Amino acid sequence: MKILVLNCGSSSIKYQLFEMETKTVLAKGGIEKIGLPGAFIKFNAADGSKKVIEQEIPEHTVGVELIFKVLTDPVDGALKSLSELDAVGHRMVHGGEKFAKSVILDEEVLKAFEACNDLAPLHNPANLKGVAAVSALLPEIPQVGVFDTAFHQTMPAQAYMYAIPYEMYEKYGVRRYGFHGTSHRYVSARALEYLGMEAEGTKVITAHIGNGGSLAAVKDGKCQDTSMGLTPLEGVMMGTRSGDIDGGAVSFIMKKEGLDADGISNYLNKKSGLAGISCKSSDMREVFQGSVDGDPKCRLAIDMYTYRIKKYIGSYAAALGGCDVLVFTAGVCENQSDIREMVCKDMEWMGIKLDLEKNAAIHGEEAVISTPDSKVKVVVIPTDEELMIATDTMELVSK
Amino acid sequence: MKILVLNCGSSSIKYQLFEMETKTVLAKGGIEKIGLPGAFIKFNAADGSKKVIEQEIPEHTVGVELIFKVLTDPVDGALKSLSELDAVGHRMVHGGEKFAKSVILDEEVLKAFEACNDLAPLHNPANLKGVAAVSALLPEIPQVGVFDTAFHQTMPAQAYMYAIPYEMYEKYGVRRYGFHGTSHRYVSARALEYLGMEAEGTKVITAHIGNGGSLAAVKDGKCQDTSMGLTPLEGVMMGTRSGDIDGGAVSFIMKKEGLDADGISNYLNKKSGLAGISCKSSDMREVFQGSVDGDPKCRLAIDMYTYRIKKYIGSYAAALGGCDVLVFTAGVCENQSDIREMVCKDMEWMGIKLDLEKNAAIHGEEAVISTPDSKVKVVVIPTDEELMIATDTMELVSK
Repeated sequence: MKILVLNCGSSSIKYQLFEMETKTVLAKGGIEKIGLPGAFIKFNAADGSKKVIEQEIPEHTVGVELIFKVLTDPVDGALKSLSELDAVGHRMVHGGEKFAKSVILDEEVLKAFEACNDLAPLHNPANLKGVAAVSALLPEIPQVGVFDTAFHQTMPAQAYMYAIPYEMYEKYGVRRYGFHGTSHRYVSARALEYLGMEAEGTKVITAHIGNGGSLAAVKDGKCQDTSMGLTPLEGVMMGTRSGDIDGGAVSFIMKKEGLDADGISNYLNKKSGLAGISCKSSDMREVFQGSVDGDPKCRLAIDMYTYRIKKYIGSYAAALGGCDVLVFTAGVCENQSDIREMVCKDMEWMGIKLDLEKNAAIHGEEAVISTPDSKVKVVVIPTDEELMIATDTMELVSK
Repeated sequence: MKILVLNCGSSSIKYQLFEMETKTVLAKGGIEKIGLPGAFIKFNAADGSKKVIEQEIPEHTVGVELIFKVLTDPVDGALKSLSELDAVGHRMVHGGEKFAKSVILDEEVLKAFEACNDLAPLHNPANLKGVAAVSALLPEIPQVGVFDTAFHQTMPAQAYMYAIPYEMYEKYGVRRYGFHGTSHRYVSARALEYLGMEAEGTKVITAHIGNGGSLAAVKDGKCQDTSMGLTPLEGVMMGTRSGDIDGGAVSFIMKKEGLDADGISNYLNKKSGLAGISCKSSDMREVFQGSVDGDPKCRLAIDMYTYRIKKYIGSYAAALGGCDVLVFTAGVCENQSDIREMVCKDMEWMGIKLDLEKNAAIHGEEAVISTPDSKVKVVVIPTDEELMIATDTMELVSK
């Protein structure tokens, strides 16, 4: 079975084509700058090189058409014809409370998803454009929606409610939803599989730390809490996002700087985090290098970054009543062993003992990095949201 | 030595008169509605009854004068003359980064304190009015300032900085300050004294949970982290305050409800917390009763309230690298054993084992409530901020 996975943003589309029998990626690439000058598609060519084709891409349907053209190109294409394609799976951002798992996209589903636009005004409409583009070009192909928020729908109310007037929940659906759900679901399940453990009865904390980042507390395979909230701003410190901040500081800064609601949102989402503190870069590798080179603001940024992850781990152990497995994943925590080491330092009190040598040797591969006598198994599991989307899609269309 | 402790708000003054040799409270009372119709003073009379005298109190000096009159009343007064008074200690709210301990109030100090007004625009000016009133009436008496924020000044930068552009710290002093410092200082030290432990080498978590609430992580007797932030909004859920909330939810609600910075601040500080979720009361006793009576929103409020305290305890154990002593104090946690029980439930993973019977029997008195084999000693220590202020005052004026 051949499945195409699409991740459509407002001006971009990423894609991966899977052969599901072998779980192989047959093709991958992406389009950027849809509707903007300088739009292009970038993909892996047959000879192993990366090819870029610039062309005008006024809207998503033209973009998807271009992806189809590249996929069926006589030289570089992975498909002889589009009829080989069995289904399309979409990464969809905000499913609100309507979607606790992946679903086949039909009119009713799309309407329900559209009703969540308000909660993700940039992302959801872009996701819908991608679905519409595929429908326009391949009206008969089954399409599946895999939601970033779905895995977190098992959280209990004590974890997802904010302590604000209850009517905010009733009127606008203000609550914690969480994001990166497909990744948390994948790595929590994969970690247990890798360790030969059953989901039932186990307490897993997953740390998905990339440019964006979130943690999740998972019990019996089900999410109990997660650090992102109504929006992806809450939680740990990120590349340009503040993570947790005093609500009183939000209004204080607005008044001091003369910012309105959009202004402060932009400030906290785009100018904060590593970039705001380091005054240098939003890229963890650069900030880390700055810290090694003795820049005090970079050092502070790294200390804050790791300290906040550490506190979430303690907090989620409390939420779960302990922790059996700690999983590191995504860009930063798959690859930067120093960050993992700083996070796990002085955590013996809860049974975390890192094998420092093993940890230092692991970059982007599955591995246990705790000592044999560590009560908490600490593992690195590279995330694979696209494979998860393809797998969900296959399962749903095979029914 | 006789010391008067004053806690001056914008329209109220609370007072306690101490005999420091025996640490006895000789008199206590309070004034309310300064500058408003129906102003009054309330105090304990000589016959043990509570007396109320209504009179016009246009400003703080008149209020302090009235307190002095009551203190030297031939029948109800605890003093023969004001000359018996050795010093006045003031609870002062926001010392910014300028005050890491209590100080004798002189002109320079008052100027430095006034410079922090911006950080506590309601509280600091009121504190200053109290000091000025005493100066006007007893120009020679030594006065001491004891700051709510001082104990938290030992926090490392990784704990006190927000992950926002660094210039916010430089321009306006935006950082975590924390409050209830006098209480956290008192109960953390008193708990160790009570348990016969040294401060050096011990990790203490203090939970000051009253109508307002905060936790602190204390190592070697020094504060390492605390849950309130730039303002007293951040942290656990409170009577009418939201505690932690997604910064993205703040701007989302502002736009939906058409609120400006003051509007959202008011919403999160005055209409949220227990009151917002229970839709019933901001008083924990009433919400708890509602929960016992089966009201689902009260039940939710209690679950959220205790869950959030529990998560902070885990988080602070991570911050400290473990926990030796957990201290409960202030209105709710001194008196409501059910809340303590809910917070400590399923916390064996970090060495907390509550003695349920002992816990249930303790209301407002010093006691160990953990089992003998509990790794973490759990204690109730009634807070006494006024005694702490009086003690600091005595020490400073005796030098």
